[in-house]
Amino acid sequence: MTPFRPHMQAALDEARAAARRGEVPVGAVLVGPDGQVLARAGNRTREGHDPTAHAEIRVIRDACATLGTERLPGCDLYVTLEPCAMCAAAIAAARIARLYYGADDPKSGGVRHGARVFAHPQAHHVPEVYDGIAAREAEDLLRDFFRGLRDN
Amino acid sequence: MTPFRPHMQAALDEARAAARRGEVPVGAVLVGPDGQVLARAGNRTREGHDPTAHAEIRVIRDACATLGTERLPGCDLYVTLEPCAMCAAAIAAARIARLYYGADDPKSGGVRHGARVFAHPQAHHVPEVYDGIAAREAEDLLRDFFRGLRDN
Repeated sequence: MTPFRPHMQAALDEARAAARRGEVPVGAVLVGPDGQVLARAGNRTREGHDPTAHAEIRVIRDACATLGTERLPGCDLYVTLEPCAMCAAAIAAARIARLYYGADDPKSGGVRHGARVFAHPQAHHVPEVYDGIAAREAEDLLRDFFRGLRDN
Repeated sequence: MTPFRPHMQAALDEARAAARRGEVPVGAVLVGPDGQVLARAGNRTREGHDPTAHAEIRVIRDACATLGTERLPGCDLYVTLEPCAMCAAAIAAARIARLYYGADDPKSGGVRHGARVFAHPQAHHVPEVYDGIAAREAEDLLRDFFRGLRDN
């Protein structure tokens, strides 16, 4: 097992918890430079009445509030799905060092798809990006969730 | 005076208030379908230890919390500066109908520059965009702020 697997498993746990709340199942974990988990969260846009409450935004806000900073250099973000343009730009603004994500998101992604936020000089910081981590589990969660919506 | 000027003046007031707090002077006002101001805010990334606390994100979150919704169809957003990619994607997610902004932001913008968030199919909603509104005042505020930082 590669060292990042436990953090992605925790992100998948957050995604499953989001699904149980009726939220799109995406989860994220933010890890400090020393390997300590700073924040973990799932999507909460519906329950929170907040279109910005994606898992990535929630862990960035939580970790920054805890540390009393607006930047998280040296930190790693694990998220089960390719971030959208909003989250990718927030990752750049927070100066997160490394982004590990699971499933690709051709429909709404903003890293490898669409706006490709990190590919422009207006992103003042570009993290290292590692994709495809536990992608199958993340995809299964999303597929089951949307199938359940259609069947209800 | 065109009808949208008072809302942009309120956004400029929020930008000036942000500057007094030591924040980058950007302000935003969110207006409901009936013309009522739903939320107004300036940048608060530093004081709030929150890299996502741009003026646009703050008014979207505030208005959604007030209305108990995650979408703001029919609403107008006034902001003194071209939104970055994070804010542009949040505007799309919130289904805001019209975006009025002041100064262009070639360095960090994500609407007319860089990621051009609304130009990709991954933005599932594209607002009408009107730029250059009270742009000179917004630019003057920003220039004075950064000049002050350099001189201190």
